[in-house]
Amino acid sequence: MNGRRLTRKGVQTRDRIVAVAADLMQQRGVARTTVEDIQEAAGISSSQLYHYFADKGALVAAVIELQGQRVLGVQHLGLDRVTCLADLWRWRDLVVGIRTAQNCVGGCPLGSLAADLAETDAVARAQLARWFAEWERILRTGLASMASAGQFADGTDTDRLALALLAATQGGLLLSQVNRDTAALTAAMDTVITHIGTLLTEAPSDTVRRH
Amino acid sequence: MNGRRLTRKGVQTRDRIVAVAADLMQQRGVARTTVEDIQEAAGISSSQLYHYFADKGALVAAVIELQGQRVLGVQHLGLDRVTCLADLWRWRDLVVGIRTAQNCVGGCPLGSLAADLAETDAVARAQLARWFAEWERILRTGLASMASAGQFADGTDTDRLALALLAATQGGLLLSQVNRDTAALTAAMDTVITHIGTLLTEAPSDTVRRH
Repeated sequence: MNGRRLTRKGVQTRDRIVAVAADLMQQRGVARTTVEDIQEAAGISSSQLYHYFADKGALVAAVIELQGQRVLGVQHLGLDRVTCLADLWRWRDLVVGIRTAQNCVGGCPLGSLAADLAETDAVARAQLARWFAEWERILRTGLASMASAGQFADGTDTDRLALALLAATQGGLLLSQVNRDTAALTAAMDTVITHIGTLLTEAPSDTVRRH
Repeated sequence: MNGRRLTRKGVQTRDRIVAVAADLMQQRGVARTTVEDIQEAAGISSSQLYHYFADKGALVAAVIELQGQRVLGVQHLGLDRVTCLADLWRWRDLVVGIRTAQNCVGGCPLGSLAADLAETDAVARAQLARWFAEWERILRTGLASMASAGQFADGTDTDRLALALLAATQGGLLLSQVNRDTAALTAAMDTVITHIGTLLTEAPSDTVRRH
């Protein structure tokens, strides 16, 4: 690797290794996932794996990138086109729907990696902070576009609301994982989105939900 | 200990082992903390450690109990006497103050253990869920006492607000750990407590804060 061009087959092999590593790390955590586990699950040799990744740290970096793209890919389905409160509610339904389909097993892929690596791997922590900053940016952009359209009362700090919504979602995902129950996720997201609704200058009937 | 009575010295030794294990697991995660690491850090022999704990699982269970007592002991400083909104703000200031004093290093001891163990240790997950239920119960009790005193508008679901506040706090603590910055914690807690304030039937001037 290290700058060398990969063949199409090489790219496929590398992607498969990263996907396998991401799944194992999501299930077990990073420390409980050895390079040997990943080799075995991907059905490759040690020399093949080290052809693509210098060490476990390089694998972890690739896993963070994959999970960031996956999470924000899913989020983007709704979040990158937020123009009114109903769009936030649609995003909330998407997040809760995914959690329900997973029976609340597993945490947020980015949140789990963050809790796992923040104190033991400064490089990974910084990489994860960049992904959370991107997530926050997407939320801020949506709320800012609502503000530009005059939907919020003057002086509303939409950047702070975006960060609060991200934090509430993360905490809700963590508690839903521990409790195997979406109640904390829905309570947290609903409360913050409802609060955002109270700051609108007007509340068109089709965008209001009661919680 | 399997039911045997410990001498006072035995209790002290056992408590020291658990405290050392809790600190190592908080710094490194459970999987990266070996029984040998704990022995060495506590300055005891393998036979001494196994005198008190049958295996690493027994140590993990004791660590969860210690961290639950520590976290809810700290929370209790404010949370068990909530009678008005100002008490929630005081608790918020306490949580943020602790995080600031820690320079945002380390996560919530219970939240970190939850993310670490939820998918790999069903017994630990259930034990952590009980601690989060206790935390939720304390918050619910405070809000319920405010409701009993007629402070909330009719129909306010204070149980759901308590759960939302807990989730927002957890998410804020996780993001503050990743970002090494309290902004997400304050944004999340402030937004939920401010929202709770909007549901009061009256807002005495001394209990209102603007965010």
